[in-house]
Amino acid sequence: MVKVTVWNEYRHEKKDEAVAKVYPKGIHSQIASFLTEAGIDTTTATLDEPEHGLTEAVLAETDVLIWWGHIAHQEVSDEIVNRVQKRVLEGMGLIVLHSGHMSKIFMKLMGTSCDLKWREAEEKERLWVIDPSPPIADGIGEYIDLDVEEMYGEHFDVPNPDELIFVGWYEGGNVFRSGMTYKRGSGKIFYFQPGHETYPTYYNKDIQKVIINGVKWAEPTKRNYPVYGHSKALEEIKPK
Amino acid sequence: MVKVTVWNEYRHEKKDEAVAKVYPKGIHSQIASFLTEAGIDTTTATLDEPEHGLTEAVLAETDVLIWWGHIAHQEVSDEIVNRVQKRVLEGMGLIVLHSGHMSKIFMKLMGTSCDLKWREAEEKERLWVIDPSPPIADGIGEYIDLDVEEMYGEHFDVPNPDELIFVGWYEGGNVFRSGMTYKRGSGKIFYFQPGHETYPTYYNKDIQKVIINGVKWAEPTKRNYPVYGHSKALEEIKPK
Amino acid sequence: MVKVTVWNEYRHEKKDEAVAKVYPKGIHSQIASFLTEAGIDTTTATLDEPEHGLTEAVLAETDVLIWWGHIAHQEVSDEIVNRVQKRVLEGMGLIVLHSGHMSKIFMKLMGTSCDLKWREAEEKERLWVIDPSPPIADGIGEYIDLDVEEMYGEHFDVPNPDELIFVGWYEGGNVFRSGMTYKRGSGKIFYFQPGHETYPTYYNKDIQKVIINGVKWAEPTKRNYPVYGHSKALEEIKPK
Amino acid sequence: MVKVTVWNEYRHEKKDEAVAKVYPKGIHSQIASFLTEAGIDTTTATLDEPEHGLTEAVLAETDVLIWWGHIAHQEVSDEIVNRVQKRVLEGMGLIVLHSGHMSKIFMKLMGTSCDLKWREAEEKERLWVIDPSPPIADGIGEYIDLDVEEMYGEHFDVPNPDELIFVGWYEGGNVFRSGMTYKRGSGKIFYFQPGHETYPTYYNKDIQKVIINGVKWAEPTKRNYPVYGHSKALEEIKPK
Repeated sequence: MVKVTVWNEYRHEKKDEAVAKVYPKGIHSQIASFLTEAGIDTTTATLDEPEHGLTEAVLAETDVLIWWGHIAHQEVSDEIVNRVQKRVLEGMGLIVLHSGHMSKIFMKLMGTSCDLKWREAEEKERLWVIDPSPPIADGIGEYIDLDVEEMYGEHFDVPNPDELIFVGWYEGGNVFRSGMTYKRGSGKIFYFQPGHETYPTYYNKDIQKVIINGVKWAEPTKRNYPVYGHSKALEEIKPK
Repeated sequence: MVKVTVWNEYRHEKKDEAVAKVYPKGIHSQIASFLTEAGIDTTTATLDEPEHGLTEAVLAETDVLIWWGHIAHQEVSDEIVNRVQKRVLEGMGLIVLHSGHMSKIFMKLMGTSCDLKWREAEEKERLWVIDPSPPIADGIGEYIDLDVEEMYGEHFDVPNPDELIFVGWYEGGNVFRSGMTYKRGSGKIFYFQPGHETYPTYYNKDIQKVIINGVKWAEPTKRNYPVYGHSKALEEIKPK
Repeated sequence: MVKVTVWNEYRHEKKDEAVAKVYPKGIHSQIASFLTEAGIDTTTATLDEPEHGLTEAVLAETDVLIWWGHIAHQEVSDEIVNRVQKRVLEGMGLIVLHSGHMSKIFMKLMGTSCDLKWREAEEKERLWVIDPSPPIADGIGEYIDLDVEEMYGEHFDVPNPDELIFVGWYEGGNVFRSGMTYKRGSGKIFYFQPGHETYPTYYNKDIQKVIINGVKWAEPTKRNYPVYGHSKALEEIKPK
Repeated sequence: MVKVTVWNEYRHEKKDEAVAKVYPKGIHSQIASFLTEAGIDTTTATLDEPEHGLTEAVLAETDVLIWWGHIAHQEVSDEIVNRVQKRVLEGMGLIVLHSGHMSKIFMKLMGTSCDLKWREAEEKERLWVIDPSPPIADGIGEYIDLDVEEMYGEHFDVPNPDELIFVGWYEGGNVFRSGMTYKRGSGKIFYFQPGHETYPTYYNKDIQKVIINGVKWAEPTKRNYPVYGHSKALEEIKPK
């Protein structure tokens, strides 16, 4: 069975009443809750735990890591970021949510600024399914409507994705590539835009379904990590 | 007219007689020489110059940067690497040659280990054109034969490219994605595998043609760098 | 110099006064007019000419073909469609505009239904530039605003493009991949959504710039068409 | 449980003794045999059955269709080809094997000539895994060695794939993109090159594993087929 660790910086919830009201036990607990209900073996980790809760032992046991961060990206230690990147390249899945777009780990894996336009304006978002075949959109209708969500707008400075699954339409006139997948090394990465801390996005059943689908999709294959370095000839080389 | 800076770590040539014999004035001078002959405005820069020859002023004037490095990747300062990355995201083209696959700048832009298999065994390589339409393969036949080249073999740990233009066949039984393009931010990147320091690869007319084509392809478009950050609504948002 | 043929079914303009008012000499003439002004060698062809104006001789001389059709897709003969496809695979560029999405030639090259949602409702469209590096968006700002355009909405049943350059935002709540490029054989294809027959879209300077850029991008490279079929061994094969 | 139909033109086996010796009950029976052993619900269909064994009822019950054809591509009726294409666009998976590259159904879905170089010369092929993360390569080592296989060589005239999973190295000096995936409509397509009729390729355990993985990957998601056509506004459109 796939093993998930939900990582959250868990700061907004402690100091902002509006956020605490929506996620009293933290965003990570709410995500872990619907994953557990879906029968997925889920634990959580947060920034202020030793090694941010992401010890070698924890990562070795993690098939898919979910990442939510925002105001404290710079407090994540480079050592842990390198450790997570290594595990992703070895095959661990990674789901980056919302403001995680500027987390150190996502920027490191993308190689770009990961910058975008944004606006908090209580506006409607409609996430259209652009690619009907990937398992990540399994069971989702033509679109998902969110009454309010933070606007994230193009241009989003990330590499062209392997799959573009959702495009967001915003009331205020912007669009955004809201669901995209990438492969890096042996690992699968899914970026999914919804989830502003003051809105109840992770209680939405469709949003939950997409994240559950994402976990299943990102599960590592049973392959050995590729062998690099000096390599003997497999065929005879003629003297020149 | 497109302005090119050819960067070379320029170490092999100074201490290894076999390399000095092939490239007496350095790999960068040979590359600059055929680019200049092709009418391209070309200068060079090397590791041991102040700021590795890549000052803000030099980069501001560079449309396309060509990169050759190998034994001294770690001596390139992080500050200069960040400066080059910023310029690529703003639109400067980047052509990474051969062992530049593990340069700091390429690894930073790819987000992966960029590792591969390798072998120096005086073996033949044949570079097949896999995609006949990109301008980078303009004027090239069905393949390019190199009597001897260092083997670089799969798996090559890089993101899926935007375009796969060449696949290398090696006498010793390996294959390699030898010519690939990427877009990062507003910049275009071309990785091209041939060019081991002890072989006269950069005297080969077809290899020269591919690099000249690459320079023209990687030239920046005349666009403003995208605007990021807080953004006002373009359409009216209804009170919820 | 690149040679363009602008093909138009030229039926709406003859029987619908509202269209004739916008395009008195036909959509093809308006497109040819701004291409010619831009210094491009341009001719036109229409459905009711012999061989639809697309004789072997005309196509042999055409570097880039532009296609506008709508109500008479089924009147285009299969023989001409096969002829055009053959030329695209050999390297001729193809720009398919607006309702050309369901032309025989586009459907044949895509292999899918090319179906979509649509609505004529006098609504605003905003075309966001999603990929800032391709030459097709050269000189365009962050987006193009069209006061009125026909809504084309996702899901658009086409293969994943090689490049997604524009995404359209519609007042009525939809999104659309409005500018996409494909490579088929040695030919480059650009689909560009704006251009409903009752709106003055092809008088818009930004729309004109995109089509001019598209023509330059789609120009064939100077390569031989690849050789297929039985092929002798290039290396010795050992008896088994 | 996923339901597979293995389609084979089943002509070589009846008239060529060398083929009959390798596949006495037909290629389809051998493929069905290892799929059944893997617990997959498998049936077969062949060219000479009524409607080529691909009635509406059969296709409606098929989750993944496997296709092997060679000398009788032209005998497959266009009506059946259209029927299969429709089902693929609606979500049915399709695995095209070896010489199926020039079957009507594959050419129709690709939109290109699907042509390639070929040679029957009793030569070795080594299929390198190029992309280590897709489930199709699950359980496969760094490469698969085939003592003898027909050479299929680049340039292979197909669209750029969504995933390039295998690249074949041939003793005679060629390379080939031997395993590629595509999405068309709601359906997933996997082209896999090995399987010349005179060689025992489909008895190879790794080749079998790849095809079994391919079947699981190509299984349709539980989505409704997208809705196309006229579509009402989801948001208010202001009078212009």
